[in-house]
Amino acid sequence: MPEAFRLLPDGTVTSPRGFRAGAVRAGIRTDVDRLDLGILCSEVSCTATAVYTSNNVKAAPLIVSREHLSDGRAQAVIANSGCANAGTGEVGMKDARAMAERTSASLGMDPSDVLVASTGVIGTYLPMERITESIPEIEVSTHGGTDFAHAIMTTDSRPKYVAAQFQDGGRTFTLGGVAKGAGMIHPNMATMLCFLTTDAEVEFSFLDASLRAVVAATFNLIDADNDTSTNDTVAIMANGLAGGGPIDNHHSAAASFRAALFEVCRQLARAIVEDAEGATKVIGVDVEGAASPEDAQAVAKEVVRSVGVKTAIYGHDPNWGRILAAVGNSGALMEERQTALWLADQCLFRGEPQGFDVIDAKAHLTGREVRIRVHLGMGEGRATAWGSDITEEYIRRNSQYTT
Amino acid sequence: MPEAFRLLPDGTVTSPRGFRAGAVRAGIRTDVDRLDLGILCSEVSCTATAVYTSNNVKAAPLIVSREHLSDGRAQAVIANSGCANAGTGEVGMKDARAMAERTSASLGMDPSDVLVASTGVIGTYLPMERITESIPEIEVSTHGGTDFAHAIMTTDSRPKYVAAQFQDGGRTFTLGGVAKGAGMIHPNMATMLCFLTTDAEVEFSFLDASLRAVVAATFNLIDADNDTSTNDTVAIMANGLAGGGPIDNHHSAAASFRAALFEVCRQLARAIVEDAEGATKVIGVDVEGAASPEDAQAVAKEVVRSVGVKTAIYGHDPNWGRILAAVGNSGALMEERQTALWLADQCLFRGEPQGFDVIDAKAHLTGREVRIRVHLGMGEGRATAWGSDITEEYIRRNSQYTT
Repeated sequence: MPEAFRLLPDGTVTSPRGFRAGAVRAGIRTDVDRLDLGILCSEVSCTATAVYTSNNVKAAPLIVSREHLSDGRAQAVIANSGCANAGTGEVGMKDARAMAERTSASLGMDPSDVLVASTGVIGTYLPMERITESIPEIEVSTHGGTDFAHAIMTTDSRPKYVAAQFQDGGRTFTLGGVAKGAGMIHPNMATMLCFLTTDAEVEFSFLDASLRAVVAATFNLIDADNDTSTNDTVAIMANGLAGGGPIDNHHSAAASFRAALFEVCRQLARAIVEDAEGATKVIGVDVEGAASPEDAQAVAKEVVRSVGVKTAIYGHDPNWGRILAAVGNSGALMEERQTALWLADQCLFRGEPQGFDVIDAKAHLTGREVRIRVHLGMGEGRATAWGSDITEEYIRRNSQYTT
Repeated sequence: MPEAFRLLPDGTVTSPRGFRAGAVRAGIRTDVDRLDLGILCSEVSCTATAVYTSNNVKAAPLIVSREHLSDGRAQAVIANSGCANAGTGEVGMKDARAMAERTSASLGMDPSDVLVASTGVIGTYLPMERITESIPEIEVSTHGGTDFAHAIMTTDSRPKYVAAQFQDGGRTFTLGGVAKGAGMIHPNMATMLCFLTTDAEVEFSFLDASLRAVVAATFNLIDADNDTSTNDTVAIMANGLAGGGPIDNHHSAAASFRAALFEVCRQLARAIVEDAEGATKVIGVDVEGAASPEDAQAVAKEVVRSVGVKTAIYGHDPNWGRILAAVGNSGALMEERQTALWLADQCLFRGEPQGFDVIDAKAHLTGREVRIRVHLGMGEGRATAWGSDITEEYIRRNSQYTT
């Protein structure tokens, strides 16, 4: 969809009209001297929705946010890093509610319009005194999106933000997003945290359906380390300040809105994979010819998930047998003799091993980005997934990230 | 079931009456100077059955063995390491059939009574000339079980074999097994290869049901690296030479047979985990109080599978948050506030974090065996799974195991 939208240089969640953000160092993180508590808010109430982790253990802030979103409205997000407030029982629920209340008092809105998000170590309590003291100290501004992106980082090495603009009926609409990733990244709501803002006016059911479809094709198709976190949330707030009437399926801006949302999410998902803990490579897997889009997604996910594939690629080894084994493990409809595999432009397997230039293949594997293509020969389904490799450095960092 | 059976010192697949085995170095493995081609056979035809990988890519030898077992009879196994003969198309099928034919000619039996197994790199062709020449050179004897166990090793550091004896009606029955593991070890037929022999006479449907039940509770509950191989096979051959009439569900030896089969498989499964590539620890997870045995198995499997849990334990970190997240990811019926977690004897979580002695917990984690207990408070289902930790050494070895 060329020209449907354009990316904004340095765009972020405060690029859309009427959104402000800010962050402080509250001392929740004791390991580094970094911003760890942030607010993102809108001048006016927003149509809002979110997608959450598939993990049956859901963190307290997620449960509170879900309650607060039950009316499809929100106006602010309070988020912290350093502590996930997960596995914390009744105390955790009380703390998450207190974060929303304190934020609503500070911003002058109803607590039920505040979403709460926490990320960091599971199983420790929030230092509520520091948080309660720090919330009123957060100054929000239209330039605060980058600080907010910093405040939600855990083991991320850099903040992740992007924004896109699209036009319709002489109006300009902006859509921005921030995300954090790094560890516990796996399909089924993989971001840990992503917040999206837009000044478009968007009808609730269209917003909700668009978010679900886009998350399924972006965040849910990335993998760093096979684990699905307890806190994963992707939330979107649409404040309508760009005017032009509510966008729904029949609106002339519907396709542009979806395209911009897809691109913003795709970029953030990719940024998470690029910054995965200890990773040296991004592995892109394009699946074609699947019996259905769902089958294509299952295959793409399983190839980027496979520890055997990840370690082979880390070692610059064109070990396509592990890719074929991952395709077989995906559960998708497939027949070995109909299946073909490529690494970059070289065909490695087409029902049987193909002669290929090993030197060339290894050269491709030394690059920062590795491209794998799978054709199943079963239908028209296609999908793309991204994953990181797994390295000694990943093991070192994860065996030392301590309770 | 005390006294139902006893383990035999140095027992193996040739401990039961009428079984012989042997192996040679055929040069299929070019990396090390090791036995790589072996035969296991019975004096007389056996009632036989097998359980295979859940991977949709099934290796050629597995397809041939399945055909040959369709009548529930077998008399020999030909097995090689160094090449999995998987992803090899029509050539691979021809080669697997040729292995069975050459073996049957050498032993003087029908090709359809020979099972074929291969393990090693996926996607390369077998060196059939060397294999065809070497098969007649294999001398089988009643002492050859250990050599056979060596011949199926890939990255295993040691052979894995065990045997048990049980009594019934004044007769002694013996049941032996060998297995290989090390890489691509994951629930759903995880062993890569395991061969079981017994001199008991066993009715086919009882043999088949017993094998499936025992495999579900042993080999399918271990995990080293999340990947399920294309070649996994557990086969059992019962030659009946101990006499006493066919054992079925109503036979007085039924319970002892099942108990011996369970113990032999349990020991081999554990030996695979203990010898997992680059691992420093065995992680045992006991799940109780699940709504069903299937739920208990799902939880136990997911905890030993979680990369987060594996790396935390490798780092001696009592990070129970990752265990709780894994319980939540299992898909089993659970409620966080009903859930309790223990590390050895210390309760870490019971609906909310429990104060615990971190020094004590870390001391337990420095040991070779780590015990985790999960109580779900939902019912009576229970299961035990074993996994290995994941280490820098695992990554090094798997990024260098080359095509």
